[in-house]
Amino acid sequence: MMIIMHTDATKEQVAAAVARIEDNGLSAHLIHGEERTVIGVVGDGRMIIRDQFLHLPGVDRVMPISHPYKLASREFIPEYSKFPLDGVRVGDNGIVLIAGPCSVESRSQLLETAYAVREAGAHALRGGAFKPRTSPYSFQGLGEAGLEMLAEAREATGMPVVTEIMSPEQIPLLTRYADVLQIGARNMQNYSLLNAVGKSQHPVLLKRSMMASIEELLMAAEYILSHGNRRVMLCERGIRSFETATRNTTDINAVPVLKSLTHLPVILDPSHSTGHWEYVAAIARAGIAAGADGLIVEVHNNPTEAKSDGAQSLKPERFAEMVSQVRAVSEAVGRSLAPVPVSEPSVVGAIAK
Amino acid sequence: MMIIMHTDATKEQVAAAVARIEDNGLSAHLIHGEERTVIGVVGDGRMIIRDQFLHLPGVDRVMPISHPYKLASREFIPEYSKFPLDGVRVGDNGIVLIAGPCSVESRSQLLETAYAVREAGAHALRGGAFKPRTSPYSFQGLGEAGLEMLAEAREATGMPVVTEIMSPEQIPLLTRYADVLQIGARNMQNYSLLNAVGKSQHPVLLKRSMMASIEELLMAAEYILSHGNRRVMLCERGIRSFETATRNTTDINAVPVLKSLTHLPVILDPSHSTGHWEYVAAIARAGIAAGADGLIVEVHNNPTEAKSDGAQSLKPERFAEMVSQVRAVSEAVGRSLAPVPVSEPSVVGAIAK
Amino acid sequence: MMIIMHTDATKEQVAAAVARIEDNGLSAHLIHGEERTVIGVVGDGRMIIRDQFLHLPGVDRVMPISHPYKLASREFIPEYSKFPLDGVRVGDNGIVLIAGPCSVESRSQLLETAYAVREAGAHALRGGAFKPRTSPYSFQGLGEAGLEMLAEAREATGMPVVTEIMSPEQIPLLTRYADVLQIGARNMQNYSLLNAVGKSQHPVLLKRSMMASIEELLMAAEYILSHGNRRVMLCERGIRSFETATRNTTDINAVPVLKSLTHLPVILDPSHSTGHWEYVAAIARAGIAAGADGLIVEVHNNPTEAKSDGAQSLKPERFAEMVSQVRAVSEAVGRSLAPVPVSEPSVVGAIAK
Amino acid sequence: MMIIMHTDATKEQVAAAVARIEDNGLSAHLIHGEERTVIGVVGDGRMIIRDQFLHLPGVDRVMPISHPYKLASREFIPEYSKFPLDGVRVGDNGIVLIAGPCSVESRSQLLETAYAVREAGAHALRGGAFKPRTSPYSFQGLGEAGLEMLAEAREATGMPVVTEIMSPEQIPLLTRYADVLQIGARNMQNYSLLNAVGKSQHPVLLKRSMMASIEELLMAAEYILSHGNRRVMLCERGIRSFETATRNTTDINAVPVLKSLTHLPVILDPSHSTGHWEYVAAIARAGIAAGADGLIVEVHNNPTEAKSDGAQSLKPERFAEMVSQVRAVSEAVGRSLAPVPVSEPSVVGAIAK
Repeated sequence: MMIIMHTDATKEQVAAAVARIEDNGLSAHLIHGEERTVIGVVGDGRMIIRDQFLHLPGVDRVMPISHPYKLASREFIPEYSKFPLDGVRVGDNGIVLIAGPCSVESRSQLLETAYAVREAGAHALRGGAFKPRTSPYSFQGLGEAGLEMLAEAREATGMPVVTEIMSPEQIPLLTRYADVLQIGARNMQNYSLLNAVGKSQHPVLLKRSMMASIEELLMAAEYILSHGNRRVMLCERGIRSFETATRNTTDINAVPVLKSLTHLPVILDPSHSTGHWEYVAAIARAGIAAGADGLIVEVHNNPTEAKSDGAQSLKPERFAEMVSQVRAVSEAVGRSLAPVPVSEPSVVGAIAK
Repeated sequence: MMIIMHTDATKEQVAAAVARIEDNGLSAHLIHGEERTVIGVVGDGRMIIRDQFLHLPGVDRVMPISHPYKLASREFIPEYSKFPLDGVRVGDNGIVLIAGPCSVESRSQLLETAYAVREAGAHALRGGAFKPRTSPYSFQGLGEAGLEMLAEAREATGMPVVTEIMSPEQIPLLTRYADVLQIGARNMQNYSLLNAVGKSQHPVLLKRSMMASIEELLMAAEYILSHGNRRVMLCERGIRSFETATRNTTDINAVPVLKSLTHLPVILDPSHSTGHWEYVAAIARAGIAAGADGLIVEVHNNPTEAKSDGAQSLKPERFAEMVSQVRAVSEAVGRSLAPVPVSEPSVVGAIAK
Repeated sequence: MMIIMHTDATKEQVAAAVARIEDNGLSAHLIHGEERTVIGVVGDGRMIIRDQFLHLPGVDRVMPISHPYKLASREFIPEYSKFPLDGVRVGDNGIVLIAGPCSVESRSQLLETAYAVREAGAHALRGGAFKPRTSPYSFQGLGEAGLEMLAEAREATGMPVVTEIMSPEQIPLLTRYADVLQIGARNMQNYSLLNAVGKSQHPVLLKRSMMASIEELLMAAEYILSHGNRRVMLCERGIRSFETATRNTTDINAVPVLKSLTHLPVILDPSHSTGHWEYVAAIARAGIAAGADGLIVEVHNNPTEAKSDGAQSLKPERFAEMVSQVRAVSEAVGRSLAPVPVSEPSVVGAIAK
Repeated sequence: MMIIMHTDATKEQVAAAVARIEDNGLSAHLIHGEERTVIGVVGDGRMIIRDQFLHLPGVDRVMPISHPYKLASREFIPEYSKFPLDGVRVGDNGIVLIAGPCSVESRSQLLETAYAVREAGAHALRGGAFKPRTSPYSFQGLGEAGLEMLAEAREATGMPVVTEIMSPEQIPLLTRYADVLQIGARNMQNYSLLNAVGKSQHPVLLKRSMMASIEELLMAAEYILSHGNRRVMLCERGIRSFETATRNTTDINAVPVLKSLTHLPVILDPSHSTGHWEYVAAIARAGIAAGADGLIVEVHNNPTEAKSDGAQSLKPERFAEMVSQVRAVSEAVGRSLAPVPVSEPSVVGAIAK
């Protein structure tokens, strides 16, 4: 931490700032520049309150030096984190594909979509049973009935299930059905929820809020990690900018930046980050080219009938095409798609196509 | 709702879009322009899913015409909403001032600050017992002990209490202690929480997320209103922009825009919207000049010792100065400060200073 | 300037960074923290190139300490700048009002509007003869014919004229007709133009680009000041954010921030910063309440016929109303409207209404 | 164009709006919805002034239907534009690489860098002789001496030269030396300059302003195209968002969006869009994966000595590495690097390596 004094700060004001630093159990180091004095604070400033210095007479600004996160940082854990997800290893050289509908709407919709994405090469199934919707009048999800359909689809296809959690009290229910708990963008700073999933020790897919900085995303991850839950994937899903041609602005820079700052796996969501199915494949390819460890993509067996996010959902055949493009790009950057585990999906006869 | 066809859409594609509109129980109205056909959808399009049209061949864009909110809208309820808060009327001609520390830190800190802001003219006391903090390592609030101190301060000063709620399960506890439940910016789209406070029928101060559009703020209010809870105040507390000279960017435009779109009272938070105590009074004055119905301001009896938000907290004497400036501006715009109810605060002898 | 080394930087890397600092004629000051070494650079780092340190092995970040501007800074010139504009003093206690149409469209339009705003209390007349328009197909201004009309309106009403300059070669022409050269938001970083108006020594109204930080606005002013032209007014006219309810987002925080950082007068443009005439008066009041030294407002005698910016133009009677509200607010904050100089406007009979 | 009436607009107000539409030579088409009336305007509304309707009583909003650009649009010219640049075809299947230093600083710096990028596979040489700098105290470029060095480097390596133009009066000078005139981001809406390069008929690289929407970029291109100059490349170079981890936010979505809206070639600048050399290769790969037609990359033979943009400049060996990665990705997406024309560069003995 650096305390920048005003150009006209007096000696007494500098001394008062130094005294306060020492009160905090840290030591002060003065640099007398041509224009002003700067005080370097030596010791772990992460735990003290920076704001306290801002009201001291003569202080202009306070600048942090260290990153505020630790467990999420590669300075602390240089090795990239990898963890198994039902036969696939997230964070490893192989790219992981998570696909499925925005919302679970019906048994046939889910199963058809699940079979299709599995066949195309997906490793995990996404699908929302509880949906955070901007309007109270929109479809809010099927709830537990949707979870049961997800469980059936997992049984049928062998794919682990990723589904969104909206509230701490859903933990017991959701951990029964889901392999990965997704924290949605709007809940990225819902600290009650972060603490709860941290304690659960269940794998988490943490989506970046559309207005969160990369540092804030890492701080949200730090909440989960600080409870000992290390199985956290970070997901870039587009940020909000002034541009309205797309639903969000894919912060593609976040991919290499995150790979440099943190050891946690980085997943890109090209569906939300563009909002238009026409652009999903291009951005999926870009994400892998930039270094992402996986993708989460919305696929619907019949997007014109979707109850949510139809505009950004791919039809199964377009998803299959995207997978083959992504495979080519992943090989061009020295990676590959993760092998699909050989599972023995139970044959569910009911879904006659 | 308007469906804009591509310039090269065929007659069959237009017919298919019309058929789908009619399938939804609505009627279609065609406008054949020079370049393209536009289809007007007649009927309440609020309940149907716009996205379904975007995958139809030949469709370029879909544009909503109606606002997505109803209960929050002045088109629906033209009269401004007013409701009592312990002797003060929020939303009335008199400006309401809510003031107090960011966090409740100790009994003496809270009581000293509460007495000081009451004396300066505040109508309600703010203070957080449960704090949403960016870092898991920061002070997270005193919890129920803090609530008890708030109750004591209410008793002592006669001011109703505004405090933040972070999770639906806190409703029983918080409604026992608080007169107004504050939904923080980070929880503005925590729908579990919005539903819970909606059902509680307790007055709510809903803060705009730093990433939310004005329309999204009104949709969040709509969640609460749709449960029959009409006592909702909206709070502009700064949005996130590229400018870093201040903590947030006060969206002062939001004040007249909200007064034109909604009947709900509009409160400005100049502390968070600037992040620096030096700018708080200027922005408080600006908010009242622009038409806000009240202010919520962070005041701390000793900001250099504050455990959170010290940089943006006013000292009591600066708050008193701000109140007198705000009084002058409120009169210049044909309003006044709401009268402070004559209460008989119990004498709490313990805090004799 | 501070050079922050990586946590794993070696002694040799630190030594190399120090050597380079000394090569630049500056001296280095080391702080060995718990996690890493930070190097303070003593001397005027404004003139050296920060980027050179970023490629050195072991360097993590480089942080500036000093503001990059000097002549615009209150650290350099603490007294607020004031300068005369045809009988009015800009930057003084009296608020200055600049009003008139977006574009000069015709003699009668301009004269009618000019008389009306003068009567309502305006001190200067704005009006564009050369217009920067987003579309090449939009009205581009009347050019020199428009300038002649402005000259006639000045003669008729006694008001000095503010008009936009778009290119360095317009200097001789525009300085003949205009009392203040306006640099539009889109040209705020057109350095050829900034240099040219700097050399001209003519008063300048410099509008903030809709995406410029406050620091960049001050750097643009520094270009003009560095040529010895000290008569520069800064104008906040709204920045671009994600919010689309208004044309721009008025950065009202910029008013007190600029008053604290710079001695130059600060003008607010509530017309562009909102884009809707309904919100102009509210934001004009807010600007004065926040501490602005003046306003520039679009007024049109018949906005429904305006060739540009009709949506945000006030009718003369609404402008008069706004002036009386602004007068009340300026008095509430201890200021007043600048007195309108008693001029003897020539009687121009030609304008038959 | 659609005119949305207020929910309480009267019949007379609707009739007045219709009358005004007809006054403009267009025809009106009414849709009486459940809540309100919407008026469709039939005819080319591009040339009329939308704002005029906003002051009419009873009008709520006006929404455009058509894109405001024509010559830049694929609706108007569906075929992608291709044009030759000294033996390479821009806009064709082959990816074009433009590389070189930010500024021309010296003969040896430029020649060394030019030889190196040519050897690595670059097709054109970038280098600034006139530099737009945020600070008036920064290096402003070598001017004509720099242009002469660029001419020598072209002669020596056979690469066409891309250099920035800052002012209309530089046209005669720059067209003598440069093969492509670059319009920098800060000048994207400098309409005097756009008109001048439009008239020059010289190839143009038009950089998107960091604050411009995709539509505004296309409108800026429309200015150039409207003068008959069709050889325009568009360049995405990062937009400004709230994220500060990188210098700008690469709007990777803009790549597929532009390829869908316009026939003009799309170039990505990963140097400015990230601001850090460590991220340049990742974003270069992402751009090609997303569908860009080329890259413009800053390379410096000795970035620690660069007078501008050293932090984001690649060393020649890192550029060579990037080229081989980009080649692999371009092949993965069914494209390739454009063949480097076999030229006979004159041997310049002076530059002894």
